[in-house]
Amino acid sequence: MEQVDHLAHERRTAEFDVEAMKVVWAGSRHALEIADRMGRLVASDPQFRKDNRTILERKELFRNTLRKAAHAWKLINELKLTDLWHQNAILFWCPLIFDHLLQGMFVPAIKGQGTDEQQKKWLTLAYKMQIIGCYAQTELGHGSNVQGLETTATFDPKTDEFIIHSPTLTSSKWWPGGLGKISTHAVVYARLITDGQDYGVHGFIVQLRSLHDHLPLPGITIGDIGAKFGNGAYNTMDNGVLRFDHVHIPREHMLMRLSQVTRDGKYVHSDVPRQLVYGTMVFVRQAIVSDASKALSRAVCIAVRYSAVRRQFSAQDGGPEIQVIDYKTQQSRLFPLLASAYAFRFVGEWLKWLYTDVTQKLQAADFATLPEVHACTAGLKSLTTSATADGIEECRKLCGGHGYLCSSGLPELFAVYVPACTYEGDNVVLLLQVARFLIKTVSQLGSGKKPTGTAAYFCKAEHLMQWKCNVRKAEDWLNPSVILEAFEARAVRLAVNCAQNISKASSVEEGFAELSSDLVEAAVAHCELIVVSRFIAKVHQVKGRGVEKQLRALCNIYALSLIHKRLGDFLTTRCLNPEQAALANDQLRALYSQVRPNAVALVDAYNYSDHYLGSTLGRYDGNVYPKLYEEAWKDPLNDSVVPDGYHEYVRPLLKQQVSFSRL
Amino acid sequence: MEQVDHLAHERRTAEFDVEAMKVVWAGSRHALEIADRMGRLVASDPQFRKDNRTILERKELFRNTLRKAAHAWKLINELKLTDLWHQNAILFWCPLIFDHLLQGMFVPAIKGQGTDEQQKKWLTLAYKMQIIGCYAQTELGHGSNVQGLETTATFDPKTDEFIIHSPTLTSSKWWPGGLGKISTHAVVYARLITDGQDYGVHGFIVQLRSLHDHLPLPGITIGDIGAKFGNGAYNTMDNGVLRFDHVHIPREHMLMRLSQVTRDGKYVHSDVPRQLVYGTMVFVRQAIVSDASKALSRAVCIAVRYSAVRRQFSAQDGGPEIQVIDYKTQQSRLFPLLASAYAFRFVGEWLKWLYTDVTQKLQAADFATLPEVHACTAGLKSLTTSATADGIEECRKLCGGHGYLCSSGLPELFAVYVPACTYEGDNVVLLLQVARFLIKTVSQLGSGKKPTGTAAYFCKAEHLMQWKCNVRKAEDWLNPSVILEAFEARAVRLAVNCAQNISKASSVEEGFAELSSDLVEAAVAHCELIVVSRFIAKVHQVKGRGVEKQLRALCNIYALSLIHKRLGDFLTTRCLNPEQAALANDQLRALYSQVRPNAVALVDAYNYSDHYLGSTLGRYDGNVYPKLYEEAWKDPLNDSVVPDGYHEYVRPLLKQQVSFSRL
Repeated sequence: MEQVDHLAHERRTAEFDVEAMKVVWAGSRHALEIADRMGRLVASDPQFRKDNRTILERKELFRNTLRKAAHAWKLINELKLTDLWHQNAILFWCPLIFDHLLQGMFVPAIKGQGTDEQQKKWLTLAYKMQIIGCYAQTELGHGSNVQGLETTATFDPKTDEFIIHSPTLTSSKWWPGGLGKISTHAVVYARLITDGQDYGVHGFIVQLRSLHDHLPLPGITIGDIGAKFGNGAYNTMDNGVLRFDHVHIPREHMLMRLSQVTRDGKYVHSDVPRQLVYGTMVFVRQAIVSDASKALSRAVCIAVRYSAVRRQFSAQDGGPEIQVIDYKTQQSRLFPLLASAYAFRFVGEWLKWLYTDVTQKLQAADFATLPEVHACTAGLKSLTTSATADGIEECRKLCGGHGYLCSSGLPELFAVYVPACTYEGDNVVLLLQVARFLIKTVSQLGSGKKPTGTAAYFCKAEHLMQWKCNVRKAEDWLNPSVILEAFEARAVRLAVNCAQNISKASSVEEGFAELSSDLVEAAVAHCELIVVSRFIAKVHQVKGRGVEKQLRALCNIYALSLIHKRLGDFLTTRCLNPEQAALANDQLRALYSQVRPNAVALVDAYNYSDHYLGSTLGRYDGNVYPKLYEEAWKDPLNDSVVPDGYHEYVRPLLKQQVSFSRL
Repeated sequence: MEQVDHLAHERRTAEFDVEAMKVVWAGSRHALEIADRMGRLVASDPQFRKDNRTILERKELFRNTLRKAAHAWKLINELKLTDLWHQNAILFWCPLIFDHLLQGMFVPAIKGQGTDEQQKKWLTLAYKMQIIGCYAQTELGHGSNVQGLETTATFDPKTDEFIIHSPTLTSSKWWPGGLGKISTHAVVYARLITDGQDYGVHGFIVQLRSLHDHLPLPGITIGDIGAKFGNGAYNTMDNGVLRFDHVHIPREHMLMRLSQVTRDGKYVHSDVPRQLVYGTMVFVRQAIVSDASKALSRAVCIAVRYSAVRRQFSAQDGGPEIQVIDYKTQQSRLFPLLASAYAFRFVGEWLKWLYTDVTQKLQAADFATLPEVHACTAGLKSLTTSATADGIEECRKLCGGHGYLCSSGLPELFAVYVPACTYEGDNVVLLLQVARFLIKTVSQLGSGKKPTGTAAYFCKAEHLMQWKCNVRKAEDWLNPSVILEAFEARAVRLAVNCAQNISKASSVEEGFAELSSDLVEAAVAHCELIVVSRFIAKVHQVKGRGVEKQLRALCNIYALSLIHKRLGDFLTTRCLNPEQAALANDQLRALYSQVRPNAVALVDAYNYSDHYLGSTLGRYDGNVYPKLYEEAWKDPLNDSVVPDGYHEYVRPLLKQQVSFSRL
């Protein structure tokens, strides 16, 4: 294919330094360089080709995953990519393939709950890949509610062992990634029973398969839980089912950092503060937020480029068709997603800082900010994953019919992403936790206990309850402090309303249950405020020609499109009046026009290779149609002109003489 | 498995006659009986088993479809299921499989655009299955904009033939269902060129493959366009690509009902009114709306039943876990969808009546109501398909992690449904057509031209512009006339606002383009009003113990949940004030409690067999977990305990001695 760039004219209209924006997106020049180098490495390696993944039959698909995983591991060793930066970069370019290698949550679980001795033993084995571990928590009948798990670990003082057992069908471990076919070991969560008493759920390291022949050990039944949503996607992964029939493990396999069972069966707490485990949770959640910006930006990149390539309808009869990206309806759906991808990227980066900060505080035994940090990370996980799942599907729809083809890359991206709304805390359950924190914060107002961090705006609750928006013309909406106060006022007022309504109920718990939908909305308002405020803060720090101006426009688009989307909130709480809402809309349209000539360059700044995008529609050069055409012929159905089954099933129909008349 | 009914207690709490509701849902006792009989027939026939569809490799999957289609055709003939009722019933129980047999849009196209003679010839062949036809309109580079198609049909007076040609790559026909592998003929849309002049796009019947050996005829290239979104789903179908290299067809193969090319190459219009083709469009769209209610109700049935089975968290420590369906957050997401399924069912039924009505008017050459009917059907197609696509995915999320498994049935249901948002008119493009009608209606107010049908409420525009909602307590929201007027006022005010803002622009077209997002919202308001008003009308007509009461509750849930969702609209147009909005929410919560004990019975009333639902989670008996467990083991990955690829890729990793330390 000759070298063309159908998007060259789009790139020429950009009003900012794309290279500088790449640095902003990557986080630093160093990060950009490594990501770029690793990206090229993976893209140029034929072992990592992904062209046929969506049409492979399950067993072949899984085998293909194992091959890539082994190759990636070899590469990391050969190139001595020992530092986290490089490994993360490889992980970035080959998502999912690596989950086996990184042993999912197995390592963090042992880090968080294992004693120093346990960590030394098991992490060494895991890092050297002498064992492969998985994280076996959820059960067939039990997901979000960890305290409801049924698997038992009963201490037997005679043998100094725990007996791991699945007492019911619903207690079968179900979903753990890597469990079904590959893992040799697992951290298994089970009810600890000793001396006839149930001490609740604890973690245990259990060997599942022989290291000699990979067969399940006696008393253990393991399998794969079957096909999952989408082509390729999580079908590359062996999410598993696991049952125990009285399996004995040494007592020392209980993860004993926080509590222990002694040789004589006594359950004792250690003096390690339980709060320390929160560090792991913050780490996992910041990674999920970071993934959200990756997935959403990938979909947005495809949709923006294809919207610039694709043309539909002419302005006048017989004239050239208009680029789809020039339609306001397309812009009003696409540009808020473009802005969201940047917003989530920046809030994700900030969460990395928060993790470092929390880790230091935990080490200094300062637990004061934990509730706020917990609410913030839970809420941002929920907000960003829900918006990303919806956003990917919206991008698919914005690509018209062709977005439905696997070769567009969007179906797999969606299918592989959506579980993020459910795993590590169902998004609604998490928002209710945020709401609980908010209600508590409201109840403590005036008590002298000062809200901190992302909840600090509650300090000025009195002001925010009285606040009046002074927007009089569309341009007033470009003032970041106006936007910020509007979001703060909405969040405070929704939380205070909920607290007042709960106080009218017969009990707090009843009020909380009855008003849970309102509480979810108050929690969303709190989280959206955090994202908006982090975006505003970021805009001031960036460098490079035109970069700040573009990001300010995107920040305003993010905020004003949210105001439009949640208009009911802003109006019922009387933060805005209808005229101010209309002015926000006018400003939003003006911002779309401002971003339009920069749109393609703004997605170029993600620096995604065509290999990583894996999309006929999102190609850098915009040469979409020849590629779509070429990809079609690779389908196995095109192996023969006359399809299998024609002679057996179709020809007899065509050749029969029926007297039957239809319809 | 022993006979159990885990949902028996749910069924006992129902406060209405489920059998009577089944009749209401089916439309009549006759329709229910036939649907029931055909459903049992299909469910009991081992040829129609669908247990492994989501894991079959593409070629096998397609072969499987052909087998089922041939079997279904045989069944219809053997049982002499000659009437439309029975055929529709079979079609209902085996969606997609039948598309080949019914020859998609091939038959309606010939019916609408063929002369009597052409109809006689080609429809007879199609009905007897001596040819299989498809509808080849869209091209690789051209979707919604039919006038932009590039394929040419040039009349050659020397041979009295048309020469069909694909002048560019982007002119390749792309997407037509059944084209890739099966169809022998197609109605091809191409630019008619005669005497050097381009007369725009017309339909032509073109033979694609030899009836002797099924090979493509000379000059014709055909193939499948490759893998599509999801497991099973549309991968059972051979959507195709088609290129012509100067293919000659007889002049008489042009569909000549509306215009002809004479022997000497003159282009002439017939005296058949062009409006007659609108009849087909109304027919197709009412079928799409009817499909929306089927798809949404199927997802809702699965989600409601599983929400009643599934339990998460206890109210007090150690107590039994709570049924998920008892959580207000679950109810506030699920019950509006339950209500929407009923709403779409009733508006779909009403559209059937509208089709009959329009057909009669067209035959009487009465074209006055066409613009209103066109806007109404375009808008309802858009509204119901968008809400259904989103609703299915929401139901999947409401089932937690297990909804992600193919055995839940929800992934395939989503993937197979979403194209409805794009085909037969992209949903946003259709809403802009509705908006154009509304703006015209507003502009003609006071001109003496009276709006009719679904736009009749514009007659009282003056009253609605002044209208004040008099809701003072939550129960006031139970009054259907209050709801109706609130929706009417919102629709009128949004349309009038748009018209006023457009009039400020430099030209109407510019204003229309600039404000298109607002126009889309005005169009949605008009369509939601139609659905609400049809639902209200339906409630008065139903019979059976408790049936009316349940439907009234669902109707109110549909309307009030929309008010909550579109609160920005209702508040900016000052149809409601914040207090009235809060009262609507209070009433909504009360309605959820009212529906709760009836929820399972309300989905039982769809009368869907377990075979049709195809869902481990949606089983009638609620015996979910043993079935999930059983299904898992059928995955090909479970053929062996040690997976393919272990010895080659995993064992060497486990056995190597690396000195490398990670993280």
